[in-house]
Amino acid sequence: MRNNERKIDELRPITIDTAYTKHPEGSVLISIGETKVICNASIEDRVPPFMRGQGKGWITAEYSMLPRATEQRNIRESSKGKVTGRTMEIQRLIGRSLRAVVDLDKIGERTVWIDCDVIQADGGTRTTSITGAFVALVLALGTLIDKKAIKDMPITDYLAATSVGVLPDGTEILDLQYEEDSQAHVDMNVVMTGNGQFVEIQGTGEEATFSHAQLQKMLGLADQGMKKLFEAQKEALGKWGSLIGEK
Amino acid sequence: MRNNERKIDELRPITIDTAYTKHPEGSVLISIGETKVICNASIEDRVPPFMRGQGKGWITAEYSMLPRATEQRNIRESSKGKVTGRTMEIQRLIGRSLRAVVDLDKIGERTVWIDCDVIQADGGTRTTSITGAFVALVLALGTLIDKKAIKDMPITDYLAATSVGVLPDGTEILDLQYEEDSQAHVDMNVVMTGNGQFVEIQGTGEEATFSHAQLQKMLGLADQGMKKLFEAQKEALGKWGSLIGEK
Amino acid sequence: MRNNERKIDELRPITIDTAYTKHPEGSVLISIGETKVICNASIEDRVPPFMRGQGKGWITAEYSMLPRATEQRNIRESSKGKVTGRTMEIQRLIGRSLRAVVDLDKIGERTVWIDCDVIQADGGTRTTSITGAFVALVLALGTLIDKKAIKDMPITDYLAATSVGVLPDGTEILDLQYEEDSQAHVDMNVVMTGNGQFVEIQGTGEEATFSHAQLQKMLGLADQGMKKLFEAQKEALGKWGSLIGEK
Amino acid sequence: MRNNERKIDELRPITIDTAYTKHPEGSVLISIGETKVICNASIEDRVPPFMRGQGKGWITAEYSMLPRATEQRNIRESSKGKVTGRTMEIQRLIGRSLRAVVDLDKIGERTVWIDCDVIQADGGTRTTSITGAFVALVLALGTLIDKKAIKDMPITDYLAATSVGVLPDGTEILDLQYEEDSQAHVDMNVVMTGNGQFVEIQGTGEEATFSHAQLQKMLGLADQGMKKLFEAQKEALGKWGSLIGEK
Amino acid sequence: MRNNERKIDELRPITIDTAYTKHPEGSVLISIGETKVICNASIEDRVPPFMRGQGKGWITAEYSMLPRATEQRNIRESSKGKVTGRTMEIQRLIGRSLRAVVDLDKIGERTVWIDCDVIQADGGTRTTSITGAFVALVLALGTLIDKKAIKDMPITDYLAATSVGVLPDGTEILDLQYEEDSQAHVDMNVVMTGNGQFVEIQGTGEEATFSHAQLQKMLGLADQGMKKLFEAQKEALGKWGSLIGEK
Amino acid sequence: MRNNERKIDELRPITIDTAYTKHPEGSVLISIGETKVICNASIEDRVPPFMRGQGKGWITAEYSMLPRATEQRNIRESSKGKVTGRTMEIQRLIGRSLRAVVDLDKIGERTVWIDCDVIQADGGTRTTSITGAFVALVLALGTLIDKKAIKDMPITDYLAATSVGVLPDGTEILDLQYEEDSQAHVDMNVVMTGNGQFVEIQGTGEEATFSHAQLQKMLGLADQGMKKLFEAQKEALGKWGSLIGEK
Repeated sequence: MRNNERKIDELRPITIDTAYTKHPEGSVLISIGETKVICNASIEDRVPPFMRGQGKGWITAEYSMLPRATEQRNIRESSKGKVTGRTMEIQRLIGRSLRAVVDLDKIGERTVWIDCDVIQADGGTRTTSITGAFVALVLALGTLIDKKAIKDMPITDYLAATSVGVLPDGTEILDLQYEEDSQAHVDMNVVMTGNGQFVEIQGTGEEATFSHAQLQKMLGLADQGMKKLFEAQKEALGKWGSLIGEK
Repeated sequence: MRNNERKIDELRPITIDTAYTKHPEGSVLISIGETKVICNASIEDRVPPFMRGQGKGWITAEYSMLPRATEQRNIRESSKGKVTGRTMEIQRLIGRSLRAVVDLDKIGERTVWIDCDVIQADGGTRTTSITGAFVALVLALGTLIDKKAIKDMPITDYLAATSVGVLPDGTEILDLQYEEDSQAHVDMNVVMTGNGQFVEIQGTGEEATFSHAQLQKMLGLADQGMKKLFEAQKEALGKWGSLIGEK
Repeated sequence: MRNNERKIDELRPITIDTAYTKHPEGSVLISIGETKVICNASIEDRVPPFMRGQGKGWITAEYSMLPRATEQRNIRESSKGKVTGRTMEIQRLIGRSLRAVVDLDKIGERTVWIDCDVIQADGGTRTTSITGAFVALVLALGTLIDKKAIKDMPITDYLAATSVGVLPDGTEILDLQYEEDSQAHVDMNVVMTGNGQFVEIQGTGEEATFSHAQLQKMLGLADQGMKKLFEAQKEALGKWGSLIGEK
Repeated sequence: MRNNERKIDELRPITIDTAYTKHPEGSVLISIGETKVICNASIEDRVPPFMRGQGKGWITAEYSMLPRATEQRNIRESSKGKVTGRTMEIQRLIGRSLRAVVDLDKIGERTVWIDCDVIQADGGTRTTSITGAFVALVLALGTLIDKKAIKDMPITDYLAATSVGVLPDGTEILDLQYEEDSQAHVDMNVVMTGNGQFVEIQGTGEEATFSHAQLQKMLGLADQGMKKLFEAQKEALGKWGSLIGEK
Repeated sequence: MRNNERKIDELRPITIDTAYTKHPEGSVLISIGETKVICNASIEDRVPPFMRGQGKGWITAEYSMLPRATEQRNIRESSKGKVTGRTMEIQRLIGRSLRAVVDLDKIGERTVWIDCDVIQADGGTRTTSITGAFVALVLALGTLIDKKAIKDMPITDYLAATSVGVLPDGTEILDLQYEEDSQAHVDMNVVMTGNGQFVEIQGTGEEATFSHAQLQKMLGLADQGMKKLFEAQKEALGKWGSLIGEK
Repeated sequence: MRNNERKIDELRPITIDTAYTKHPEGSVLISIGETKVICNASIEDRVPPFMRGQGKGWITAEYSMLPRATEQRNIRESSKGKVTGRTMEIQRLIGRSLRAVVDLDKIGERTVWIDCDVIQADGGTRTTSITGAFVALVLALGTLIDKKAIKDMPITDYLAATSVGVLPDGTEILDLQYEEDSQAHVDMNVVMTGNGQFVEIQGTGEEATFSHAQLQKMLGLADQGMKKLFEAQKEALGKWGSLIGEK
């Protein structure tokens, strides 16, 4: 039995608050257990230089943690004067994942900036960010529909992410808390769509390795967790949720 | 009459939530009107090099805004690779203000890091940060008393901040919202202690000037606003509030 | 009695040399006591991006100290790879102060760069910089009149700055030397115009506070010091001085 | 049929030259098709601060491309003044992968620096780097055995990496060249050990997704490719190869 | 007698491989003794901003060493976040030297980027870079002739570089290896053209000085070494070599 | 005839003011024609890490120009966040040159920081810096003798620098002004000692070359110019000058 009587294939409680702050086109506070992330989506009416003139849009993401989101205070990246490798990896992952379910042609020459700011961390900040960012993105695109700037919701399917791993005793588990994550021999992040396709799989042995059988077991757990995440997203999205995947 | 039927000498509504996130020794979410700032205080058991060996503590502050805390999205300072002049000015102001009411000798060789992260901005983010940071600081020092690491609360008085200004029509007003702030000819931040002493006065004519009489009028408004701020702090602080200023 | 038999309400000797170096449109060496600053004003025939197309000009300032302007050698900011918070605060203050007495519409789309380089520091480098920079600015604008690029002197009033403070024994003093400054409990910089209006007031308790009465006393001293500063500026400016504030 | 009559489950030709440059403890030039990487391993007799005093060693990797390793010249990261996110991701991957097969306790307090410098790029530079770096690492550790600084080869198993992907027509292929890589809908890097365990799986849909069946097919291709890579490593390693995985 | 029975006026063996990597317009691996440098020349169809609109071309150079090109591993400049003074000096020298024999008007508005990457260092890396870069440059310009983008070879003469120095015992020597270089009291780099003109002389006493007579002796040695370098270049250049200096 | 009726072998007027600012151990304002440089020497009682424990001292130099030392205003290197290649080259040259005439063993574990800040530039700023820095250095070392921290003046000979060049018409000239410098085909900086030895020769053809005969002629002019420079230094140094080169 895990912390809080959680079962090995059980997600932590999920809450998704929308309209969390007033300025962004889409603003979400997502909590998965004790991990809390503000996901804001901002629409800018132009695209980066490498995209100009193609009539297509772009989605890009940034990720950060408040210095004391964690047990120990971290130095701000702005004070260090540079973004760490871990942050870059995460923000590239978030952006790439979201783009897999967006029809960029339908957005027009606009950029959606996704800002994921972790205010409290307890494991799974990158997967929680993706799950929350998806909701913020849909809400922001909804404002474009409301303003009649675009006609259809340019989202082809739901998208969420979760983590799975292998504990030192060999047990495969779903949705790792910080403490579990720091002990796990294998840590895998899985990003999937509503119809069960993979968008991204990143499995890593931490000074350890894993077998084909363990991989399958972990993928099964991830698949199972996704259902709850999509439900929570659907509920948070209200009317916009039903437009997803429409032709 | 101002927005929301506010009078010229009236503060916006104040709320101060404590224990806002779980990791910091002191964690506060302060809202003054629509301006919302997370103020976290973290205790580190050592001081910066220039303070070592003096048996004294240190208080330092950092300030940041979420990219979309504002109407227009701002580029992250970590992406720019440097902290702007405005941010530096504000974090120096917060740290200096707090140190004016702390007996650093009583803290021992510890640093209290104050992190003010603005999640929604509507004018007065620096004064709101100071007012909230004071509460987070006292709470963090309270944990040292609880752990018997120090004996007395090393805070000599309450401390809060507010803004005052002069509108284009010459009216002096208290607690400027963003819209008022961007029009004002004069903008002044005042930091004061519970017994009515000044800690910091920063009055600036924005391509304008102000007279001695206007200065006096603004200082009077500030003085008036302080009372409400100290009340809100006292309520948020509970038992720790009564230890402030004790010998 | 202070150093050099100076009275508490007495400025140090002021000298302002013009045409100090040959390239800048306005070039001044100002000494207030042992504090010496080269203030150069350079005119550039365009404005920064955020000002373009408005037909208005811009004034911006930079501030630096030679590494050995001080008792201890300081590391160059170019070697550190960044400008410190203190420097940014000062250069923002200088630019903002000057803009308060300039009619930017009359300059046309030009930028005046003000460079204040402290070659010897003994307290009051920022206020000395403002006082000297004003002279360099007027001289530089004079070259535009000489070249018939503009018709009138676009300066609405004289502008100077000084420091006042409170010593540990409670005495309020005018124009602090380095040694006094490092002991003072309160340090206040005041920027004023020729007709006695305030442009900027920055009063700071250094781990201390100050009362309303002390504030008034300090403002009185500042007011008194301004007269001498305006005289010295007038003398240095020669014919250009008489055009200031003309309609 | 692919370029050069290559089959979909066929690796490009592999060559591994050892002792490529004279200074490093291990120096390898690896070519997989037209992708050429210099992999140097350098031994330093101390570990980074966070590892000190544990009696263990550390393996860290850096990755770079010559500016003209690619079709278009890239700006040097030293000129940009920062390492890109892509480079950071790759160097973290290389280091993490190698550490999975090293018994760090047996190295003593030493760091092995792995430098992978791509001199010619044609797809698969990160997997080629891992495969070559493994050889350089073993050779460098061999010098420690030769100098009797350590007793046993602290490598628990062979380690290599390859890429697999899905072409737009749905075909799964092994070992993508640059041209294939830039068209592929799915791109997956797989790092495996000699006994068939996974160390790292990174599968990414590029604005696309992939099914469970496609994942299995790709993993099968990767598994197949590994055999050739281990053979080439074994041949390059000579006597040192036979010590791998010994107790 | 020097290392490898070399005489004091004898160059180390020279080899120049062309078409070393496939992407650059000119790609050379030059070895002088154990010093090995990859010199790549890349043609870009535009010039830097300060050259635009003049109908002329530009040549610029960058220089770097692999971290383990040397006996001790060096930290990458990309990790440091800045290019060192030594590197800047060298790349400025390479670019300036090459430009002395190029008729920039004949290149059209194109930039030739010269990248010199030292893969193994044993003294004389900057002079070896210049000698190799000249070959890469001519080959790259040759591709422009082949594509009929330009008519004539815009190179006015051969160009090579070598080092000379004075050992502690007073002997003047040609082409210093690393060990000799680190002992030498005087170190001089000489860049010359095929017809015996100087392009650059940089002679430095390392905490030492040198006489007029020593200078003459060193220049004589340099002159002698040049002949072999020009021969090696001519051989490497094949048909393109004969176009050099043609009207 | 040159500007101001100067002959081709004639230096511009030299003035060297000592004790120019009050804080540095040695402080000099040197003017050669219209080029004016403040050269300050600061003594620090420790050496950089790479020199520790050898009982020897170190001399290091920094160089900068006020933004408007030149006809066009330059951006500050602190604003750019990095030191340019030109600056690095110059400060390395100044430090290296001075060290050639200092007996570092006699200084003890001290660093002398030389700061050369150009306040007005009209050609020859680097050679003027060296000539002035030498005087500042001797004065600073003199304070060590005065304080009995060292016994003898650790300077083995006088040291000065000048520039020579070749004009487009082929004339060799001494001590180039800015206008001459920007036209010259060849530009050479020569650093020499009081007894006529070379410390540094840096001759550069600017998109041009020079013959052996021209080199000799330029060296002759440099030699001639040195005499005047040494006289001016001797006069400025007073009593300290006579201790130079004593055993």
